[in-house]
Amino acid sequence: MTFRVAVAGCTGYAGGEALRLLLSHPDAEIGALTAGSSAGSRLAEHQPHLRPLAGRTVAETSAQNLAGHDVVIMALPHGTSGALAAELPDDVLVIDCGADHRLADPAAWQQFYGSPHAGSWPYGLPELPGQRDKLAGARRIAVPGCYPTTATLALLPGLTSGLIDGRDVVVVAASGPSGAGRAPKPHLLGAELMGSASAYGVGGVHRHVPELRQNLTALGAEDPSVSFTPVLVPMARGILATCTAPVARPTDAEEVRRAWRDAFADEPFVELLDEGAWPQTQHVIGSNAVHVQVALDEAAGRIVAVAALDNLTKGTAGGAVQCLNLALGLPERTGLSTIGVAP
Amino acid sequence: MTFRVAVAGCTGYAGGEALRLLLSHPDAEIGALTAGSSAGSRLAEHQPHLRPLAGRTVAETSAQNLAGHDVVIMALPHGTSGALAAELPDDVLVIDCGADHRLADPAAWQQFYGSPHAGSWPYGLPELPGQRDKLAGARRIAVPGCYPTTATLALLPGLTSGLIDGRDVVVVAASGPSGAGRAPKPHLLGAELMGSASAYGVGGVHRHVPELRQNLTALGAEDPSVSFTPVLVPMARGILATCTAPVARPTDAEEVRRAWRDAFADEPFVELLDEGAWPQTQHVIGSNAVHVQVALDEAAGRIVAVAALDNLTKGTAGGAVQCLNLALGLPERTGLSTIGVAP
Amino acid sequence: MTFRVAVAGCTGYAGGEALRLLLSHPDAEIGALTAGSSAGSRLAEHQPHLRPLAGRTVAETSAQNLAGHDVVIMALPHGTSGALAAELPDDVLVIDCGADHRLADPAAWQQFYGSPHAGSWPYGLPELPGQRDKLAGARRIAVPGCYPTTATLALLPGLTSGLIDGRDVVVVAASGPSGAGRAPKPHLLGAELMGSASAYGVGGVHRHVPELRQNLTALGAEDPSVSFTPVLVPMARGILATCTAPVARPTDAEEVRRAWRDAFADEPFVELLDEGAWPQTQHVIGSNAVHVQVALDEAAGRIVAVAALDNLTKGTAGGAVQCLNLALGLPERTGLSTIGVAP
Amino acid sequence: MTFRVAVAGCTGYAGGEALRLLLSHPDAEIGALTAGSSAGSRLAEHQPHLRPLAGRTVAETSAQNLAGHDVVIMALPHGTSGALAAELPDDVLVIDCGADHRLADPAAWQQFYGSPHAGSWPYGLPELPGQRDKLAGARRIAVPGCYPTTATLALLPGLTSGLIDGRDVVVVAASGPSGAGRAPKPHLLGAELMGSASAYGVGGVHRHVPELRQNLTALGAEDPSVSFTPVLVPMARGILATCTAPVARPTDAEEVRRAWRDAFADEPFVELLDEGAWPQTQHVIGSNAVHVQVALDEAAGRIVAVAALDNLTKGTAGGAVQCLNLALGLPERTGLSTIGVAP
Repeated sequence: MTFRVAVAGCTGYAGGEALRLLLSHPDAEIGALTAGSSAGSRLAEHQPHLRPLAGRTVAETSAQNLAGHDVVIMALPHGTSGALAAELPDDVLVIDCGADHRLADPAAWQQFYGSPHAGSWPYGLPELPGQRDKLAGARRIAVPGCYPTTATLALLPGLTSGLIDGRDVVVVAASGPSGAGRAPKPHLLGAELMGSASAYGVGGVHRHVPELRQNLTALGAEDPSVSFTPVLVPMARGILATCTAPVARPTDAEEVRRAWRDAFADEPFVELLDEGAWPQTQHVIGSNAVHVQVALDEAAGRIVAVAALDNLTKGTAGGAVQCLNLALGLPERTGLSTIGVAP
Repeated sequence: MTFRVAVAGCTGYAGGEALRLLLSHPDAEIGALTAGSSAGSRLAEHQPHLRPLAGRTVAETSAQNLAGHDVVIMALPHGTSGALAAELPDDVLVIDCGADHRLADPAAWQQFYGSPHAGSWPYGLPELPGQRDKLAGARRIAVPGCYPTTATLALLPGLTSGLIDGRDVVVVAASGPSGAGRAPKPHLLGAELMGSASAYGVGGVHRHVPELRQNLTALGAEDPSVSFTPVLVPMARGILATCTAPVARPTDAEEVRRAWRDAFADEPFVELLDEGAWPQTQHVIGSNAVHVQVALDEAAGRIVAVAALDNLTKGTAGGAVQCLNLALGLPERTGLSTIGVAP
Repeated sequence: MTFRVAVAGCTGYAGGEALRLLLSHPDAEIGALTAGSSAGSRLAEHQPHLRPLAGRTVAETSAQNLAGHDVVIMALPHGTSGALAAELPDDVLVIDCGADHRLADPAAWQQFYGSPHAGSWPYGLPELPGQRDKLAGARRIAVPGCYPTTATLALLPGLTSGLIDGRDVVVVAASGPSGAGRAPKPHLLGAELMGSASAYGVGGVHRHVPELRQNLTALGAEDPSVSFTPVLVPMARGILATCTAPVARPTDAEEVRRAWRDAFADEPFVELLDEGAWPQTQHVIGSNAVHVQVALDEAAGRIVAVAALDNLTKGTAGGAVQCLNLALGLPERTGLSTIGVAP
Repeated sequence: MTFRVAVAGCTGYAGGEALRLLLSHPDAEIGALTAGSSAGSRLAEHQPHLRPLAGRTVAETSAQNLAGHDVVIMALPHGTSGALAAELPDDVLVIDCGADHRLADPAAWQQFYGSPHAGSWPYGLPELPGQRDKLAGARRIAVPGCYPTTATLALLPGLTSGLIDGRDVVVVAASGPSGAGRAPKPHLLGAELMGSASAYGVGGVHRHVPELRQNLTALGAEDPSVSFTPVLVPMARGILATCTAPVARPTDAEEVRRAWRDAFADEPFVELLDEGAWPQTQHVIGSNAVHVQVALDEAAGRIVAVAALDNLTKGTAGGAVQCLNLALGLPERTGLSTIGVAP
């Protein structure tokens, strides 16, 4: 089958990555490309790497310009996708790469975003138990945040196996600045970031905190707690999340390893690495793969799981394409690679 | 006063940094420069940035070549400084940048290093309560590991104030590869590290774990536990440590901030940043400064402290010079800057 | 058609990149993977990003282990491919990513490599005039050096149009360290390269100089001269070559642009960018694309052409696959992308 | 002697670097700190590494606020320093880090900047023959551009010795983005620059071209020509310039080396490296040193000189302090280091 897809927000990093992936998706026909203030310019000015689309003109983001497509991928600023989606027919598959429809709890949304809640859509993390069923045939999908995807997948086997229980989870995640988008802000300048690491959104205030808690709850945790600290490091792409949680019951290294291995055995994109190998973001860049490794720290009474993924691919646009495949009934791997561009 | 100083291990990163600092120390007269396999070569081959010493010839590391100095700084592979120091007179100030004499507990040494314990020297972290008195006049000093220095300083006010108690500490620290030294190993190649983040020594096996526990104990913790994960990121220098611990008693943001501010009020090198500012390694590169910020995450029940320092300066050679000043009765700041080379 | 392909030197960067590309080549069946000292280990230890091949065992590089394949790609140290190829049947397609068979002139080889000349094979730069005919059906192909590929393509239109004549060409090319291979050498350590740029092989001594001259001659230059300086910069992959040559006759910007546009009009992988856009290595990473831009500097009397490519893809393994396609009669683009992984 | 110095433009990279150096200048008393739109904010918001000045408030840039100082260092946008300087007394030393007063030729200014010429001040490159005399006692000084400083020093010995004559000079210089300043522009975002190299200002249009020609003329060249291409590479600081020119008369490697060695023999900041060693920006970061190496490429008939410096130090603020020392009659090295922060 062929589907016709529009990308709203085609000039940013998430939109560009969606187009990069769609260009090698055998069933995709790329339709409208829309944006805000850049409407009227050539796509080549914004995405010089997407040569096959170089001559395309960027249209303005509007329901009218997005009409007539089977799929609309939205890579828009927070707070704008809800109203736009409401203008699109119900049988159009709308995939929102933004945050607007990720949280089920309006109070959590209000607390962290401070604006009215746009409502909740099926959550586009197929690896959650039972989630593939919810995504099959869905016509509205909320792509998870890049940090929640990374940390949730790292910890998932611990929760489903009962080895951890979602109490006192600590996540520290190193990330490149592409996740912050393309708007020119002084603290995202190359000269500020090269050769430097810095923490931000510390102390429970990052907007991905309620989404992390929501995911832990979805995995069976009761009243989970998460201390989450993102760290900006000098690489364009990639997230490496170090996730630890207290063991919920006596266990040993073998049982821990078995839990993680079993949980991912049938996953097309998540892999537990060989013993002794630890994830490195380089190995997943440009791919939809997630590399995971786990250790039991008996002295600290904690399990430590580390996951690496590409924040723009599996963390955003690759996750979107994976969900698109599920929603349209295509093989889940279609158009998605598991092989990173390394070194 | 002028002191005559030799540097053993002058061709590596720590030795080079010690020389860089000593070249601007007003009281230092740089004597013998020694190394292992590079003996006989010109220093310029190894440390092209140290132009004033370019013409110096590297001597072989031996007690004979190190004789006749007031101070000997050792930047040697683990396991070698003990025997060498034993051959030097007791009134020579020997500062060991390596691990050999950091741990007081022979069992901990044995467990993590697997070799006979060389014994314990005064621990070169002047910011520990009462430690300056122990370093004044000392003639043997063990410079702390770079990660323990960072994490200990980040958490110190929490322990001395009783806001945390050393239970269930989690430390995740991003670091550049200069801390791993100059020996050519495949995983330290530029092509492997650029554009990539990776964890190593995960699960309680890193050799700095017992040193971290020792420091927490020195700060009053009973039976502390630490989950420590180092993360290699693409910058030559710098450590950014994210350190969290459960609050030990009810508190609020103001009390937390006050504890951190008071603890560092008289410290010459450790600074609590303004509210809202978070440490960035760039701001301390090349300096002996430590930038710290702290937040209370009430939902998670944890205090999060973040510290940045230069692993080669305050984390190794700058810490060594700071101790040298204390041991010789010089002003503690002599020859040390608090201003990083940024951007 | 399906072909069975072996990769000799599978543990290095060039071999790994060949495998990355072959894994998405629809006609390739990946056979033997061989190496030198790593024989017996799992491929996952060396190429963690190539998950579909993670379980493969590395065999020893030998004619015996390479037998029974339609294609053998060699990514071996210089000086070793000739003898090995001699042991393989004539009807096996052997593609040498090393330097051994690039130079037609034994004296040039002798001068720059100092060892006996292994002989010359068809030169794997399909963009040279008439070269595709020579590669069609070939069974021995020498993949060009990464710098010569970049600079030759940048300057090609100037020579074929007669706007430049190969006199006094100056090439300065920034490159990442992956081109230097995976052998651990001190000057390739991450700590040495991050945040730093350095020149090497300056003054006409780099081994790619005779190859550059050979290519300029192939493009019609009589007795060309090239000043070539490679510059190592802190990025894992990519080459950006700035190439300038005196204008050979009066011209103007429009004629220059037309010459470059026409020369690449039918090329599948080489693109002249829009006016005002200049090549950036990020835009071609992981792809076989070459981005080129050109300017006429009237005051200096020189044409300046800048080209960007991925040294491991179009510069090595992608070029090899492109040649493989031509030699086997497959569509030239098969298995090769023109879209870089940006940002 | 003590001098009181104001810095106009204290929130940018050049102003920050000037303050970093002045903080360790034994004779400097730091007075007013001024800026444009940031007036009223604390300096710590903009320059977190300058801790001793953290509590200072930024004043508005005006003649009134700059009054009462012995020295005013201007690090302002192009086109603004002339009018401001005119309001300051003649006996105040005004050092302009911007371009406004570098060019002696109004037509060249007009061609490259398109605005009225502000006039010419003594050119702050002390290494030019006879220039120190012109700077001694000067009260208006124009600090050179960072690229012209690098390339001029690299080539200087060739011109003063007559080995090159300024014909057909080609300069390709790799630089980090700090030279482009702190204004947030999309193409300077970290995600755009990391892992990527790109050329800009190609074809003789960069504003440093007329300054380069002016310097070559000052060194004796008649009607020099320069092809100049700047290349942005992923490092915060540093310039590595590869500079080549045809030999003007028969020569050999020994004579070339002697010319370069002799020219720099008495220079406090410029050093010809040992034979076989090539400049690396890392080795000069944070220092006022310039590292130079030279080779004769007999086959190409060109001399190739490579120079490395820190664009913010010797390339801007360090050059300013060096000139300040000369103008005030202080030892030229005061407050300036020749030792880079490496690795």
